[in-house]
Amino acid sequence: MRIADLGTPALILDRAVLARNCAAMAARMAGHGVRLRPHLKTAKSAEVAKLATAGQFGGITVSTLAEARYFAARGFRDITYAVGIVPAKLGEVAALERNGARLTLIADSAEAVAGAAERAGGLDSVFRLLIEVDTGGLRGGVLPESGELLDLGRAIEAAAGLALEGVLTHAGQSYDCRSVAEIRAVAEAERAGAALAARRLREAGLPCPVVSAGSTPTAVYAESLEGVTELRPGVYVFFDLDQVGIGACVIEDIAVSVLASVIGHNRRAGRVLIDAGALALSKDVSAGAFMSHVGYGLVCPAETTRPIDGLYVAEVHQEHGLIAAAEGAPPYDTLPIGSKVRILPNHACITAAAHGVYHVVDGGPEAIARWERANGW
Amino acid sequence: MRIADLGTPALILDRAVLARNCAAMAARMAGHGVRLRPHLKTAKSAEVAKLATAGQFGGITVSTLAEARYFAARGFRDITYAVGIVPAKLGEVAALERNGARLTLIADSAEAVAGAAERAGGLDSVFRLLIEVDTGGLRGGVLPESGELLDLGRAIEAAAGLALEGVLTHAGQSYDCRSVAEIRAVAEAERAGAALAARRLREAGLPCPVVSAGSTPTAVYAESLEGVTELRPGVYVFFDLDQVGIGACVIEDIAVSVLASVIGHNRRAGRVLIDAGALALSKDVSAGAFMSHVGYGLVCPAETTRPIDGLYVAEVHQEHGLIAAAEGAPPYDTLPIGSKVRILPNHACITAAAHGVYHVVDGGPEAIARWERANGW
Repeated sequence: MRIADLGTPALILDRAVLARNCAAMAARMAGHGVRLRPHLKTAKSAEVAKLATAGQFGGITVSTLAEARYFAARGFRDITYAVGIVPAKLGEVAALERNGARLTLIADSAEAVAGAAERAGGLDSVFRLLIEVDTGGLRGGVLPESGELLDLGRAIEAAAGLALEGVLTHAGQSYDCRSVAEIRAVAEAERAGAALAARRLREAGLPCPVVSAGSTPTAVYAESLEGVTELRPGVYVFFDLDQVGIGACVIEDIAVSVLASVIGHNRRAGRVLIDAGALALSKDVSAGAFMSHVGYGLVCPAETTRPIDGLYVAEVHQEHGLIAAAEGAPPYDTLPIGSKVRILPNHACITAAAHGVYHVVDGGPEAIARWERANGW
Repeated sequence: MRIADLGTPALILDRAVLARNCAAMAARMAGHGVRLRPHLKTAKSAEVAKLATAGQFGGITVSTLAEARYFAARGFRDITYAVGIVPAKLGEVAALERNGARLTLIADSAEAVAGAAERAGGLDSVFRLLIEVDTGGLRGGVLPESGELLDLGRAIEAAAGLALEGVLTHAGQSYDCRSVAEIRAVAEAERAGAALAARRLREAGLPCPVVSAGSTPTAVYAESLEGVTELRPGVYVFFDLDQVGIGACVIEDIAVSVLASVIGHNRRAGRVLIDAGALALSKDVSAGAFMSHVGYGLVCPAETTRPIDGLYVAEVHQEHGLIAAAEGAPPYDTLPIGSKVRILPNHACITAAAHGVYHVVDGGPEAIARWERANGW
């Protein structure tokens, strides 16, 4: 089926671009000599995971237990669940492990460690833990130079039901960078902080085989990854307008888009209406921090992902998107009612999450496959 | 099961509040002598639809073909699909009608009408159409005083495969109102525009049995609905912080919330981390236009939906929410790691769309049912 014949709105994934993005990241990581543990919160798809882990050691990262269940059932056994663990989730972790998965969890507080240790006893399990380290993201994590780091390491090692695997950090602040130089500085802070935390644990006689870092911008621009054992970028598989704005990719690297139908022309307001709105595109406007006239996404002809000059989704309602032109009126005649367009998203992770399936193309206009997604929790 | 024992994040729906909201809107519409055709894009749930249509004529409104399929299969036959129709969707409309549904569609252009007429011939169907009228929303629709209105009416009546049912308008601008007086003025513009369009069609000898209007704010505050035959409010079933801001409800009327677990304390940043982020809450920040310190939602104890003074979700990442206090540090001690909170959403329609099911309570802490949702397209 040609994508122009798909019902709308629909999520389109270009396998050719995806494969190129995966190969490029694999080459970067090989160049650094670090393992690539792709974060599959972006794709939530086993088919994408196969491409992202091709030629790699096979480990993956997830953000939900739903993803852990889904990927474990499809043969991805080495899973880092990179959201702070709470005791109530450990029953399901133990069940996944009994079925052959190997999960690694994260914690950044004595309370979380104590809770996991207690639950491990009740479940007769041993949980692998990474200590989350804050290298500037100001989200979760202890400081690499803190006494708390060593206290947590000792508490994990002392607990019968816990095993210390190492440290994990995520330089989320890389998303706020405004230049390659800034990204490089963040990447170095991420690397240095993770390496420092690992060294301090080891110097205290604690094990630290895993030193896990990474975000897509820092993975793309890191100059050194010395002391890091693995990186966990995620959105690089698809890229998006936000990553274009940050400078981590170019528009041609964006692998996902939303197919929409033109459903109306409002010439009084200077708008072309489409049937992709707040749900199909999301309300993410992150790329607007980097460029003007991007709104909820850039508009392309249905056959390509080359934006039509100046056209963007200026406004969204639940199932309506309103396309405007940066200057003057949008080209109503070339966007007749019933015609289709493709919208490049601000943030691929968030936009894709509204869709149950990918309609896969391979560089051309034919939809060659449907790939499922593991949404929800 | 107590909601405190549910996995997180999870969407909680209080049936008692829902039922009260439905009864209040039904009483308002009865007072005006107009039919209530609830817009089920908010709830996407047959169980909610049963409550929202109880004692009513049974008609509903939907925003996607997925909702139309879902509700038609569950006995809701009289369905208005209130997004501008395009020819490619008419095959599915015809199939639903062959199975006993009665769909009403909308159009606002000669191209859309011509396309529908042509497709009706190919499908050997007759499609019911409402002409969309713009009463100030500046989204879709022709002006009620325009010549285009009559041209469209005549074109629909002249087409063998189309039947003119009347007019439809949606005063979406009511969401931008800042006072009850403003909402009342918008409601009157909505009513007057729809009534004018209907009168002009009838004076031209065209049928106009249906005069459909409505949004939740205008449904709540309309002083007169003379000339209108039905209203299509939607979010009133659940309400949300945006509607509190607009003045269409109070906090106690909010029927949906997101249960989340506390997963960390970042005392350096002054944040309590929870496992509900951009996906579980959405990136909608609409209530921020009306109130400060609301962010991505207000924070309540797990057992209630009474906000904890000053606490709000200040920041979201994909699966992380960061709770801040309006002043000073958040109360870490009363929100220990592993404890649960409930988040009141900015915009219930958008937040609910990320969740596959409602966990239903009935005024208390016990989850008494799971109600499915018809997400996607």
